[in-house]
Amino acid sequence: MRIAHVAPVATSIPPPKSGSVETMTSLLTDGLVARGHDVTLFATGDSRTTAKLAGVYPCGYWHDPNMWPWELYEMLNIATAVERGGEFDIIHYEAGYYPMSLAFARLSRTPIVQTIHHSPSAAEIKLWARYPEAPFVAISNEQARLLEGLNVIATVLHGIDTDNFTYREKPDDYLLFLGRFTEGKGVLQAIQVAKRLDMRLILAAAEDEYYHEHIAPHVDGRRIVYYGEADFDAKVALYGGARALLYPIQAREPFGLVLAEAMACGTPVAALDKGAVREVVDDGITGMVFDDLEQMVDGLTRVFRLPRSRVREQAVARFGVPRMVDGYLAAYEKVLEAHRARTA
Amino acid sequence: MRIAHVAPVATSIPPPKSGSVETMTSLLTDGLVARGHDVTLFATGDSRTTAKLAGVYPCGYWHDPNMWPWELYEMLNIATAVERGGEFDIIHYEAGYYPMSLAFARLSRTPIVQTIHHSPSAAEIKLWARYPEAPFVAISNEQARLLEGLNVIATVLHGIDTDNFTYREKPDDYLLFLGRFTEGKGVLQAIQVAKRLDMRLILAAAEDEYYHEHIAPHVDGRRIVYYGEADFDAKVALYGGARALLYPIQAREPFGLVLAEAMACGTPVAALDKGAVREVVDDGITGMVFDDLEQMVDGLTRVFRLPRSRVREQAVARFGVPRMVDGYLAAYEKVLEAHRARTA
Repeated sequence: MRIAHVAPVATSIPPPKSGSVETMTSLLTDGLVARGHDVTLFATGDSRTTAKLAGVYPCGYWHDPNMWPWELYEMLNIATAVERGGEFDIIHYEAGYYPMSLAFARLSRTPIVQTIHHSPSAAEIKLWARYPEAPFVAISNEQARLLEGLNVIATVLHGIDTDNFTYREKPDDYLLFLGRFTEGKGVLQAIQVAKRLDMRLILAAAEDEYYHEHIAPHVDGRRIVYYGEADFDAKVALYGGARALLYPIQAREPFGLVLAEAMACGTPVAALDKGAVREVVDDGITGMVFDDLEQMVDGLTRVFRLPRSRVREQAVARFGVPRMVDGYLAAYEKVLEAHRARTA
Repeated sequence: MRIAHVAPVATSIPPPKSGSVETMTSLLTDGLVARGHDVTLFATGDSRTTAKLAGVYPCGYWHDPNMWPWELYEMLNIATAVERGGEFDIIHYEAGYYPMSLAFARLSRTPIVQTIHHSPSAAEIKLWARYPEAPFVAISNEQARLLEGLNVIATVLHGIDTDNFTYREKPDDYLLFLGRFTEGKGVLQAIQVAKRLDMRLILAAAEDEYYHEHIAPHVDGRRIVYYGEADFDAKVALYGGARALLYPIQAREPFGLVLAEAMACGTPVAALDKGAVREVVDDGITGMVFDDLEQMVDGLTRVFRLPRSRVREQAVARFGVPRMVDGYLAAYEKVLEAHRARTA
């Protein structure tokens, strides 16, 4: 299949440090190439890929303050793919922010399918539903439920690079919080859990205003430790050494990439029951899902006892790249079939 | 000619109070209709026009916080016009913020021409120049100079509604500043001039943070008077009553709509020599252009002596809607000719 994979152009593919959209885009691109497909990745020129790279800009707009307004850079990136539509059977757009490709849905001769990476509001859905025929892929059933009135052709959970999330049999003696410092991610709740159990908690995320205002006062470098933002290798080391990943999520999120990543290192997760958590965590196998913080505090020792080899095994089966590639190939086939039926 | 005129969808056409892009779009649309052209205006549903209205949204995103992110609303508005391209000979896009229509330049079967309403940065021009064939209209030679490397097919100064900017022979005894409260607009300099000459100055603009921080301390309600934001009727009354409009502009602006509006009411202007000022002001006829504030203070009585009837007459000749309509029709013809040559 001749596939144009259109990435956001904020930063490189894969991203220098973290970024779920960029990471997933990279894995899917290279996974499709490994299956023998002819993939062209529309991304920044400093991206690394086994696909053909269409580097519309030398670098991403996160790295060049002159690249403003960023929206026009995104628009002209997807436009370039649509202009070259004749070279592709399908265009897959990774709408990092919002489905700009809708604007091309009826102008492109090549069908466009788009993955949504956030939880859209009712108003967003109402707008997008002006294009009821445009095919979407959801990243969880939790998210798919929000996409009512749209043409959701598949739900494909994210895959992760399970080969490089190295399994570790014996962890150190700490808990881990990894993610952005926001209220929705529940970092304060994670601190509360660690304090209640008098356990060491390592916080790994980029330093920001929220950190200085809300987190720093708790950081004592002994029980509550601030690591900083972890790059890939550091993340793997941090996951592997943790007895459990704390995920006391407060917002309804459409996925939870850190859950899958921790599991791949053999680390079980302790999560609150919000958003897509139950789709990602196999309760009692790869971690435990709790109704509230009290339950989490009480149940954490049971999480520690989950066999780490079994956690890893299940993570590879469920979040390995092959499963994601299968899911997207099936979705592409579905889009092409509908396209053929329409144009026949 | 079958013309799609694509307005920004932030607010209605014409705008409820002020807005240069929206006002110009309204005047051009209705001016084209008056010449017998078949015009469809893509704008918010609450717009008023003599053209056919394609109201993609009931109202603009400035009036509905749910309409976010606004960029996608703008994109799907222009996309709708491009999708309906077969109905039009030409699409004219009023890029309020940035030329989104570039994304459609090579996908639209109908040629698109776009007016730029701001002074773009070098980085913006570099990006836009990826589409060197896309036709632009500049709103002044000052702006056209910035558009190097682009296909600028014409410079068309804005027109204003000279019929409704009522001429007033005898003004009251005050100076006027009208515009946004920003450093670039030179409101503090206007205050300085008024204080130096011990004259009354009326400030008309929307209340904002800059007002509270920088302007309010000068407002005494006697010499420096704050009017608030003026709607159309109030603007006309304020212009007509002023002995002169002060325009001590600090930024290089691509036009200066308030200059033309004041002149149409017979009010001469006192302006600093920046940006497009010399293209709008006929020095010694409709106002005077000064090199610095000192000169302006010294020369203001000479501005007062300019015959108001002559100011009005010249404003109507130069900024009446018919001249703008002529300019755009010539630009459209040029675009269509190039399009025919390309597709022949």
